[in-house]
Amino acid sequence: MHKVIYDTDPGVDDAMALLFLHRHPEIDLIGITTVFGNASVETTTRNALFLKREWNIAAPVAKGASVTIDPSRAEREWPAMVHGDNGLGDIEVPEKIDVALDPRPAHRFIIDTVRANPGEVRLVAVGRMTNLARALKEDPEIAGLVKDVVIMGGNFYVPGNVSPVAEANIHGDPEAADFVMTAPWKVAVIGLDVTSITTMSRSYLGEMAAKGDEAVKLLDALSQSYIDFYKHAVEDGMMVHDSCAAVYVVAPELFSSISGAVRVVCGGIADGQTIIQPDGRRFPPGDWDGLPSQIVCTGIESEKVIDLIRKALLRV
Amino acid sequence: MHKVIYDTDPGVDDAMALLFLHRHPEIDLIGITTVFGNASVETTTRNALFLKREWNIAAPVAKGASVTIDPSRAEREWPAMVHGDNGLGDIEVPEKIDVALDPRPAHRFIIDTVRANPGEVRLVAVGRMTNLARALKEDPEIAGLVKDVVIMGGNFYVPGNVSPVAEANIHGDPEAADFVMTAPWKVAVIGLDVTSITTMSRSYLGEMAAKGDEAVKLLDALSQSYIDFYKHAVEDGMMVHDSCAAVYVVAPELFSSISGAVRVVCGGIADGQTIIQPDGRRFPPGDWDGLPSQIVCTGIESEKVIDLIRKALLRV
Repeated sequence: MHKVIYDTDPGVDDAMALLFLHRHPEIDLIGITTVFGNASVETTTRNALFLKREWNIAAPVAKGASVTIDPSRAEREWPAMVHGDNGLGDIEVPEKIDVALDPRPAHRFIIDTVRANPGEVRLVAVGRMTNLARALKEDPEIAGLVKDVVIMGGNFYVPGNVSPVAEANIHGDPEAADFVMTAPWKVAVIGLDVTSITTMSRSYLGEMAAKGDEAVKLLDALSQSYIDFYKHAVEDGMMVHDSCAAVYVVAPELFSSISGAVRVVCGGIADGQTIIQPDGRRFPPGDWDGLPSQIVCTGIESEKVIDLIRKALLRV
Repeated sequence: MHKVIYDTDPGVDDAMALLFLHRHPEIDLIGITTVFGNASVETTTRNALFLKREWNIAAPVAKGASVTIDPSRAEREWPAMVHGDNGLGDIEVPEKIDVALDPRPAHRFIIDTVRANPGEVRLVAVGRMTNLARALKEDPEIAGLVKDVVIMGGNFYVPGNVSPVAEANIHGDPEAADFVMTAPWKVAVIGLDVTSITTMSRSYLGEMAAKGDEAVKLLDALSQSYIDFYKHAVEDGMMVHDSCAAVYVVAPELFSSISGAVRVVCGGIADGQTIIQPDGRRFPPGDWDGLPSQIVCTGIESEKVIDLIRKALLRV
């Protein structure tokens, strides 16, 4: 069983990945930590509690960061055109959810849980990297105590989605992401190179909802406006960004990858860009030297990934 | 006939492109301007004069920039491991060449020649962009008077060669390159996406030399140590970077391309990176908005390019 802490900002594609992590038989979801990004942290936390209640998820929810790790960075507007004003595609969600939050802040929850399960925890982070960076800064020793970190974020040999070279999760807190990528723990980066070509059509999701239980029907409902948003890039379907990272936990063989030190650009026109120095390539001395080699996914068997999501969500 | 000014820092692959431009029947090489880069501008100018004499090239040589357009940038060592200490693979080259230089600095030569041939001149620039930027700053109207600018430099969806994201010509003077890419003239960028996959083997060049005249034999001789250098990346052969730009002048149909505004990162870990915002892709307002759309080559028919070089050099 893979013990997973899911760091998330639900978020529509976050919701699908949450249901996958909850339902996959080889995954033990031991915590959900929230972060700002697709909406404010108040909204993403409310959404996490809502989905926990609706989907009967046992894992505790701990509320995380509301601002970037460098507080001098100006905040931008929430991407309401992507995830809706309420972060869940503007389906009806109660203002207050009568489910208890974990009393600890997310980064403290991460530290405690990692220390209680040394060598076992897999951190699946699909929002901004702020909580992970905070946890690392408060307790650097956790780098040696987690099993690995699986990130949805960044882009390497394809364009970005919020600038020509930057992806939203990384662009949303570049300093945090640079800290996380260069820390001495094992990171696998699942970025737009693979997630932007892994799409689920509206009809495929609809058929799942028709066969599935209320949980899948809710997922289908909250995904509709997100699919509408993607019409500029996807033929009546959605990119399943965060689910790709969740699938990597159990099926890394569906991904091809390169390895190397990864840095994140902080500032300037390339702000938030992820850059790998591939292992084995020769460059003059530079900013990647001596840093840990991480895994960057550059290829994916999209159809098999989509099928694996379907099987987990329908428990077939 | 294509009227070409060749801005160059010979340089081994520069030499092959020079012979191509000189010998191609549809090209009228009307000037050679030199720039620092593969060696000091004294050395690259001496080399241009040497090749002009050896190859009996009529076009005048004008000496150009010796430092970056922002003089506060620190100069790095010349890449002697690539082009040799003398810039021509350390074959024997006289210290002084008894051939007259054009009296004007390169940027002035460019301005005068463009103004004397309005709408006709194609600037083929295969070194740092310093001379072009200087010419543009001194006489911005030339932007509307050149036919186009064809650049060997940059990289878009492949790694760089002097850093994980930067190519040597652009990295050598990022401020100049950003100025050139964003000016209101037509630029075609031939970068590592296409040049790094366009290689000529030692034996292919050797067979050309065997069939060809003294000019081709000289080219073969000066290319040997460059081919040795490339052994980490090419199977006994060389990337013909600069010749790709020269071939684009007469055979753009051998290239596939995308269009969009291009910026160059100035400073930070991505220093010297070229970034395109592809036309038609949606991004939030940003640093590429309102800039001229340029052509960026992303695909090439390498075998046909190599064959076209052979035919021009052998005049067959």
